[in-house]
Amino acid sequence: MKQDLVHGGDWAGYEKAYGKPPLDFSANISPLGLPEGVREAVSAALSTADRYPDPLCRELTAAIARKEGVPAEWCLCGNGAADLIFRAVYALRPRKALVVSPGFAEYEAALRAADCAVEHYLLSAEQDFCLGRDFLEKIRSEVDMVFLCQPNNPTGMTIERPFLAEILEKCRQTGTVLALDECFVDFLEAPEAYTMTGALEGAEHLLLWKAFTKLYAMAGVRLGYCLCSCEELLEKMRQAGQPWGVSSLAQAAGLAALKEGAYAAQVRRLVWKERPWLERELAALGLRVIPGEANYLLFQSQRPLAEPLRQRGILLRGCGNYKGLDESWYRTAVRTHEENARLVAAIKEVLE
Amino acid sequence: MKQDLVHGGDWAGYEKAYGKPPLDFSANISPLGLPEGVREAVSAALSTADRYPDPLCRELTAAIARKEGVPAEWCLCGNGAADLIFRAVYALRPRKALVVSPGFAEYEAALRAADCAVEHYLLSAEQDFCLGRDFLEKIRSEVDMVFLCQPNNPTGMTIERPFLAEILEKCRQTGTVLALDECFVDFLEAPEAYTMTGALEGAEHLLLWKAFTKLYAMAGVRLGYCLCSCEELLEKMRQAGQPWGVSSLAQAAGLAALKEGAYAAQVRRLVWKERPWLERELAALGLRVIPGEANYLLFQSQRPLAEPLRQRGILLRGCGNYKGLDESWYRTAVRTHEENARLVAAIKEVLE
Repeated sequence: MKQDLVHGGDWAGYEKAYGKPPLDFSANISPLGLPEGVREAVSAALSTADRYPDPLCRELTAAIARKEGVPAEWCLCGNGAADLIFRAVYALRPRKALVVSPGFAEYEAALRAADCAVEHYLLSAEQDFCLGRDFLEKIRSEVDMVFLCQPNNPTGMTIERPFLAEILEKCRQTGTVLALDECFVDFLEAPEAYTMTGALEGAEHLLLWKAFTKLYAMAGVRLGYCLCSCEELLEKMRQAGQPWGVSSLAQAAGLAALKEGAYAAQVRRLVWKERPWLERELAALGLRVIPGEANYLLFQSQRPLAEPLRQRGILLRGCGNYKGLDESWYRTAVRTHEENARLVAAIKEVLE
Repeated sequence: MKQDLVHGGDWAGYEKAYGKPPLDFSANISPLGLPEGVREAVSAALSTADRYPDPLCRELTAAIARKEGVPAEWCLCGNGAADLIFRAVYALRPRKALVVSPGFAEYEAALRAADCAVEHYLLSAEQDFCLGRDFLEKIRSEVDMVFLCQPNNPTGMTIERPFLAEILEKCRQTGTVLALDECFVDFLEAPEAYTMTGALEGAEHLLLWKAFTKLYAMAGVRLGYCLCSCEELLEKMRQAGQPWGVSSLAQAAGLAALKEGAYAAQVRRLVWKERPWLERELAALGLRVIPGEANYLLFQSQRPLAEPLRQRGILLRGCGNYKGLDESWYRTAVRTHEENARLVAAIKEVLE
């Protein structure tokens, strides 16, 4: 069986090979661990984990809707945001879709699973992987779905909201669904200036993704959600998979996470402080660093880094399997200062 | 948004309406609660729940394969067995499929989500919903997939293995995949006489489902698996959905559950003792009870039971939404003796 791992975060493979956990910079997760309130909530939820989960996630959906300021009917929870990518594609059955490269691999994986033709818009390294205005021309009536990520993964680059509004309007004209992944938007210094949540009303062709995975360090618990003002589409997505996709443990975790405002603020402050530091340090080593704004950085090294770092107990995300990048590109998460310093020291050692 | 609940186990809706948990006979789950070892394993796994789960479930898959006596490459874990039903259908893309009615609703839900034409083989109440030999004739070359459940849900009726072997052989001749749901097989008194695990070798068109949900009371945790000797099909199923479908909590829970032999034996002994008792008691109330062999019983009552029982704090599975049944049919789980006695007393009260 072919079982290629296309993503970062393969601590299991590392542990199997080395017998101890790695320092993992390959997955873009809060470095502060599971919030204590979430841990307690999951432990408490174990006493009713023999029951089927609420298939409608009623309490969690209501709480998310309150936080997002949208009707509960516009919110659909999933087994991580990735679950909802597949559900959206299976529900919409696009024949042709447009994705941006480099970008998160699961958009294309889902589209291919649903036999959809995939067009790639190649971001250019020369322009720091910024989305160009010519993207608008790529949105045509034969394109059923467009995937964008704000900020983009693995580049960390943002799209200005006025440009996104133009893209959304063009999608309206061409009858295209704009699937906008905002899973990392909360790591931006001003998420409110970038999120398209405010554009949901009246734009039934806008589908937004959000995750608990990253900000609340809940990757192993699995929880994400979609926002959309087209209730019919959300209902189709609900029916495009099993009814009990979100475990009762994840539902309890999500409810608890929404109360972890102090934790979230702490993670965000940490990222805002550490990302510029890490960016400067990597650049000082002669590496080209893309000026991303998320909790990760894309950079280029002419010398191989992944394997030597692995031998030093550190996982980095090699980006050779991203369309539009090659083996010289790496993505690193932004972690605590001490950990970032360990990464920089290890890279320095390898380069010298 | 249309959000009909087609299954039992809606404790969340009950709690919302009544402010307290029901005594739930509507979901077919072990009444002994989450095994202590599983609870401890999930709690321990919380310390690494910030990491992405192992997408290949390497440790769990190896443990399941050892238990089932098959190569690890023949095993695919999912977010509950229902996740794997959808993955199988999305991977195989059948144009026409055959299901048995009454049967588990998710086979048809998945087939419809994938735009597959669904043929129903109607089981007859006159024959206690036994699968007839004429089923063989329904398996033709234009049928891409056949779903069967052993024992069947909601009837609890089994299919003798020689007949299943004939069905499997017919499927081989017609190029049909036999999707056989054995999620309740462990509740039979002699599972080894019914399971088709031994037929996997050399039958690449046989796909078996197993769940942790029921026997180990892990419905809220979500974990199931498929067994198949066609590694290519399992790989396609893996790619038909997100890579991180099985949470790290569920992986830890599964590993712990496999060590809960004493718990499993206790549940099974309880069911073997209580099912005949409950069957007799319901029959003594003048109800027609189908002689199923699982941890649930299908029975018929000319008087409505679901709502009056609900008012008495008891959830029963009304079967009016099963094709091939009507509002007069109910399914009840087999629970502890005390709970079963409460159910019988409540039904008696309603009927009098």
